[in-house]
Amino acid sequence: MLMDDMGWGDLGVYGNPEKETPNLDAMAADGMVLPDFYSANPLCSPSRAALLSGRLPIRNGFYTDNAHARNAYTPQNIAGGIPDSEILFPELLQKQGYRNKIIGKWHLGQQPHYHPLKHGFNEWFGAPNCHFGPYNNINTPNIPVYRDADMEAVTFLQKQASSQQPFLLYWAVDATHGPLYASRQFMDTSRRGRYGDAVRELDYGVGIILNQLKSLGLDNNTLVIFSSDNGAATYAKQKGGSNGPFLCGKETTFEGGMREPTIAWWPGKIKAGQVSHQLGSLMDLYTTIISLAGIEKPTDRIIDGIDLSATLFQNNIEDREIFYYRGDELMAVRMGIYKAHLWTWSNSIQEFHAGTDFCPGQIIEGVTTHDQTNYTAQPLLFNLGTDPGEKYKIKPESAEYKQVMPNIIAAVNKHKSELVKGDPQLNYCDSHLMNWAPPGCEKLGRCLKAVPSDRNLCTWPH
Amino acid sequence: MLMDDMGWGDLGVYGNPEKETPNLDAMAADGMVLPDFYSANPLCSPSRAALLSGRLPIRNGFYTDNAHARNAYTPQNIAGGIPDSEILFPELLQKQGYRNKIIGKWHLGQQPHYHPLKHGFNEWFGAPNCHFGPYNNINTPNIPVYRDADMEAVTFLQKQASSQQPFLLYWAVDATHGPLYASRQFMDTSRRGRYGDAVRELDYGVGIILNQLKSLGLDNNTLVIFSSDNGAATYAKQKGGSNGPFLCGKETTFEGGMREPTIAWWPGKIKAGQVSHQLGSLMDLYTTIISLAGIEKPTDRIIDGIDLSATLFQNNIEDREIFYYRGDELMAVRMGIYKAHLWTWSNSIQEFHAGTDFCPGQIIEGVTTHDQTNYTAQPLLFNLGTDPGEKYKIKPESAEYKQVMPNIIAAVNKHKSELVKGDPQLNYCDSHLMNWAPPGCEKLGRCLKAVPSDRNLCTWPH
Repeated sequence: MLMDDMGWGDLGVYGNPEKETPNLDAMAADGMVLPDFYSANPLCSPSRAALLSGRLPIRNGFYTDNAHARNAYTPQNIAGGIPDSEILFPELLQKQGYRNKIIGKWHLGQQPHYHPLKHGFNEWFGAPNCHFGPYNNINTPNIPVYRDADMEAVTFLQKQASSQQPFLLYWAVDATHGPLYASRQFMDTSRRGRYGDAVRELDYGVGIILNQLKSLGLDNNTLVIFSSDNGAATYAKQKGGSNGPFLCGKETTFEGGMREPTIAWWPGKIKAGQVSHQLGSLMDLYTTIISLAGIEKPTDRIIDGIDLSATLFQNNIEDREIFYYRGDELMAVRMGIYKAHLWTWSNSIQEFHAGTDFCPGQIIEGVTTHDQTNYTAQPLLFNLGTDPGEKYKIKPESAEYKQVMPNIIAAVNKHKSELVKGDPQLNYCDSHLMNWAPPGCEKLGRCLKAVPSDRNLCTWPH
Repeated sequence: MLMDDMGWGDLGVYGNPEKETPNLDAMAADGMVLPDFYSANPLCSPSRAALLSGRLPIRNGFYTDNAHARNAYTPQNIAGGIPDSEILFPELLQKQGYRNKIIGKWHLGQQPHYHPLKHGFNEWFGAPNCHFGPYNNINTPNIPVYRDADMEAVTFLQKQASSQQPFLLYWAVDATHGPLYASRQFMDTSRRGRYGDAVRELDYGVGIILNQLKSLGLDNNTLVIFSSDNGAATYAKQKGGSNGPFLCGKETTFEGGMREPTIAWWPGKIKAGQVSHQLGSLMDLYTTIISLAGIEKPTDRIIDGIDLSATLFQNNIEDREIFYYRGDELMAVRMGIYKAHLWTWSNSIQEFHAGTDFCPGQIIEGVTTHDQTNYTAQPLLFNLGTDPGEKYKIKPESAEYKQVMPNIIAAVNKHKSELVKGDPQLNYCDSHLMNWAPPGCEKLGRCLKAVPSDRNLCTWPH
């Protein structure tokens, strides 16, 4: 269950003051809460590519080097997408006999050969892009919705239960990404505005799915993970979600950008009422899931995800690093309770003055910088235990800094020396490649004629 | 159970990322969480005076009008204290046959006639002042600890259980107020530094007390409330606690200063697993407790606390206002989901430049002001549901503002027109009144001779 732009602080169990997520709170009480769990990127497309490939975007190609440290994604005119050379975990499950369905947002390329049905999924109900439109233009492509069969997660679960075929359901709902929406039943029911309405509806959906698993007798044989693709979009002002006590949000490599509200649930296998401070990553789902399915990890490439089975089932802790990338740059690293910033950036002063604030109400000198600031010679160091908000720099002359930093530097050097960058997929845009004539348009008489190619370097403002 | 400077965001159940409060989280799961619960003041002494008197400090005298909107408390040389004319709820319970014990910090005046044994308590183990010393001076008074009998809450509970006499235990521990401390057993056990060690020890203590109630069979006949006297002292930098997603902390009338992590527990009477968005105040404990004990509320004065019985037992919601005072000024009002600031102030620019920051990392233009800013002509309005961090002012020209503000103004006017201010107790300081010769000093040969009176207006910097 991958949420879209939902923040760490949006769930009752993660401290949201309005406490409007009873189903998720119950899921947490029946399972394991993972408060130190991260996405691999502060933006949707790269985060999703990393989840499915088990690899950092810098490896799987979901980044741009058009400009330094820029966030990039897959708009309608993007030329690239998920490379065929990436082995997605749904592909591995499929070979093992699983039936896989994605419901919701794909976001790994909009050209047909990048679509989910070509990359390990048997069924798809959803859109290749973000849902922010256009929907209703006459002269340019609208966001298409693809569906191959049944519309709902519940129907899929019922079918899989009766067929006894193992399955993967990738529930990638997009309701908490702008533009916000909710069904009539949930409109104006929240104390948190439209965003809260959407959260309440998703929470309701989680309850429906977990109850369906229970009533089908699948609950003792199904691992369910709830998380989000990046932090809440704080720049959306009061319409957005909450990153709790963390700094900034989506688009940034501060904690608000990449720490995700994560819950693992598997009655009978994962003990109820647990908390694990294991440093986790969405990429770990790759390794964990194929391990549980008895599949070997690919050995011809680096897989960044680790196997969390021992965390989930025995509450073990394994040391590991969390790497915070923005585009082509390694911005920060977490090891244990410490986080070091090699680079800091919120957004440009021009964007900021034009009204886009990634850190509303938060200003930390030398940290929430409007210039890309290079600290690689002497990284900024924070203790996220005593200082989750990244407010108090540990002094470089302190014993703590001197004890911690060499290990971090060593890990950074090792990481960089082993890094083979993927071919950047998010460099080129081309209007010719947009969805001018999606399947079915002929029935409506609404197919458009593609414009000629205007292949160009995409512009990524932040 | 009244904590000292513990923040809304310090408990696992209230979203602390380190999730180090298993006993409090279990207490919450077995009882009711009240995320919209407030202290009556952002500072210790006035908050405690309000809790015990059921009345705002501006009524009970726990304020100063030495200067405008200044926080004041009871240092060692304070002349004032809790007036005899205030009817504290322990006094009412005592008349009804209860045996009352306070363990910990009193802070309602250090002269003997202000002490707890003169104001409704039968037993006292603790100090009249804050524990920040001095402890070991030869020439000036140290902070005394008073004890009359047993040292521990558990012993008191056992004694009360065997005597069958009803009781009040006011557990007013001070470990999360600076200087921070913890027992050896808890030192360096937290991921949050010394503050976290103290929180862990208090959480452990909560578990001991609740288990003791259970094993004595008192749990079905005892209401237990957990809360804190004001927000976490954010100016203490990384040593301090967490106010979660809220603005600023102790000393301020922003949410971080007065919203408290509150749990109500009474197995068999309060249903497990509930959340109530009732606007609550520590002053409500006065009215609720005497109501439960079958005692009539005093009718010769305004009692600000309301009876929360219907909230606790039927999860009812009653409309009411929360008034945020700083010293002699009404700074803000909450009604429903809305909060209006009549005045804003963090601290003076001089204090700020000298290194005291009440809102570290947080700057909201026109809100976290370093001047006392008067918005009474057009109050700042926030929706705490969509905007718990008080970041996004609702525009005065908006329909929402126009709909909400008249009711708030009317409530403010009503409040002010009915207000009879108490005699300010925190105006005068006098070194002569310090504890030069506390009881027992003669045995140690350490009694000091009081200095002559130097009665003067106390200085309150913020």
